[in-house]
Amino acid sequence: MGGDFGPEVTVPASLQCLATNSKLSLIMVGDEVILNELLSQALIDYQDRLSIQHASQRVEMDESPVKALKNKKDSSMRVAINLVRDGRADACVSAGNTGALMATARFVLKMIPQIDRPAIISTLPSIYGHTHALDLGANVDCTAEHLYQFALMGEEVVKAVENIDSPKVGLLNIGEEDVKGNELVKAAAKLLEKSQLNYIGYVEGDSLNAGAEKVDLIVTDGFVGNVALKSIEGAAKMIGTSLKEAFSKNIFTKLAGLMVYPVLKSFKKRIDPRLYNGASLLGLRGLVIKSHGGTDVLGFETAIRLAEVEVEKDVTGKIIKKFEAIAAEMEDA
Amino acid sequence: MGGDFGPEVTVPASLQCLATNSKLSLIMVGDEVILNELLSQALIDYQDRLSIQHASQRVEMDESPVKALKNKKDSSMRVAINLVRDGRADACVSAGNTGALMATARFVLKMIPQIDRPAIISTLPSIYGHTHALDLGANVDCTAEHLYQFALMGEEVVKAVENIDSPKVGLLNIGEEDVKGNELVKAAAKLLEKSQLNYIGYVEGDSLNAGAEKVDLIVTDGFVGNVALKSIEGAAKMIGTSLKEAFSKNIFTKLAGLMVYPVLKSFKKRIDPRLYNGASLLGLRGLVIKSHGGTDVLGFETAIRLAEVEVEKDVTGKIIKKFEAIAAEMEDA
Repeated sequence: MGGDFGPEVTVPASLQCLATNSKLSLIMVGDEVILNELLSQALIDYQDRLSIQHASQRVEMDESPVKALKNKKDSSMRVAINLVRDGRADACVSAGNTGALMATARFVLKMIPQIDRPAIISTLPSIYGHTHALDLGANVDCTAEHLYQFALMGEEVVKAVENIDSPKVGLLNIGEEDVKGNELVKAAAKLLEKSQLNYIGYVEGDSLNAGAEKVDLIVTDGFVGNVALKSIEGAAKMIGTSLKEAFSKNIFTKLAGLMVYPVLKSFKKRIDPRLYNGASLLGLRGLVIKSHGGTDVLGFETAIRLAEVEVEKDVTGKIIKKFEAIAAEMEDA
Repeated sequence: MGGDFGPEVTVPASLQCLATNSKLSLIMVGDEVILNELLSQALIDYQDRLSIQHASQRVEMDESPVKALKNKKDSSMRVAINLVRDGRADACVSAGNTGALMATARFVLKMIPQIDRPAIISTLPSIYGHTHALDLGANVDCTAEHLYQFALMGEEVVKAVENIDSPKVGLLNIGEEDVKGNELVKAAAKLLEKSQLNYIGYVEGDSLNAGAEKVDLIVTDGFVGNVALKSIEGAAKMIGTSLKEAFSKNIFTKLAGLMVYPVLKSFKKRIDPRLYNGASLLGLRGLVIKSHGGTDVLGFETAIRLAEVEVEKDVTGKIIKKFEAIAAEMEDA
């Protein structure tokens, strides 16, 4: 029910995913009257692959997480996460209020015992393909140990999504030399250097999209990560606006724009945020994917597909096992 | 002598600025043999508006600031800053090693007494025109008081460069609500709220280029500011590369690219980093402008022009007076 457009987006996206993945089953959680109405227009009957779970409430996009947790015990968000907790769903995908989703997921699913803080990871387009980055806003004040745990969790997502064995991990800093950075990154670097991770060292902000070297996973705290992500969004918006303006100046530039429309379209596709939609909340005992609230059908489809991949590769199970193994090693030592 | 291309860029840029501003006088600091050789090709004799100050050394781009400070007492950078200290120059413009420039400027010029830390400010293109942001990398660990001082200093630069009376000041955060952010920004917000500044509250990363509202000056610590700036550079590079690739795919897209070349050129100009080149080092008892090391003649011209404006408007003098007035007020209180 969440996001700026609610079921108008989530229902068609769900039907599209059911049509293209015959192994997928979906439970739509929300107001059954609205959902049934929208589903009655569907052309295909997905039978046992599609069901509705009624939820009488919805969390508003500007509602405080604390209030949502306290007063909205039958919200679509809460009921969907309950399904994950009860083993009736393998993942929850939501376009709803980020703070409320994080708080509810943490409350209902609980943290994986050895992990201190949840983190938000997402994918960005880069000149080399993709870069994954975390934390993108769950934690504003982090310790070096938190960043180290983020790297361990993030590695599993990158392995699953990119289908690679040993993702290159970089630590976000303001220079590549050892002397650069604040106390936090210097301490985190020490932990990453002695880890099993394929740690390549400090990387700068441009590595998120176009650094000198390919990096698969970039680790940072939630304050810096969120600012970097939003800065990139702002830059992309400004550049897009400027490009549109240049082609809108007069009748000649408009004609020119029409002529090169296919080229501009293929360019736009490469950096289309809808094709990168979906952020995983990591560190929880269950999979929760957050879709951008303002996305459309294509964007929400991308978020559902991310859930499909992470479920298929059992990312949550692998994170749990990895941290159990590290805890066991430390006990042995 | 600094930057990736040295006098090959700085000399032609200087001549260009002398040609377009008859009130400008320049002292070129560096190897007099090289400089004389390049100047001998100049078409116009600027007589007393152009002179050479010999310096026998140069700071390498990867040299450590400490070593440069200790071993390069006759470097072009050091001699140029000495000229500012001695009142023989109103500003120093350098494309050299940032760390060495900052360390040398701080050592030679000293800080303005009431200011704790220097800060780096620069301009970014935004959908509303320009945004100015600081600190972009001088200080990795800041206090709220530092951020407050950055805002006070930055205001003078924005007033001078944009010719406006009361620039809108925003504090970079990961959300606009009061509850959002780390301890640092929350404490800084309190100081900014009770200041004389036109403080508009928290802004997010996208405000650097394309926020929901126009902001003239964005304040942050040097770690976050530097990551944000580099992230924007990376995004712009990635988008530029994708656009170029889209037009390079085959003979048809290449022809299309040729046809719309004037449109693409006008678009490119809007976000051309050379037209935004030049960062001011604030908080010092003298004006120092840092040019991007990899820029070309046009870019270095922009940095010299920034120095012209800041000298004409006496930005350093105004910052000194502002902090003296605040100190006097606090003594009275």
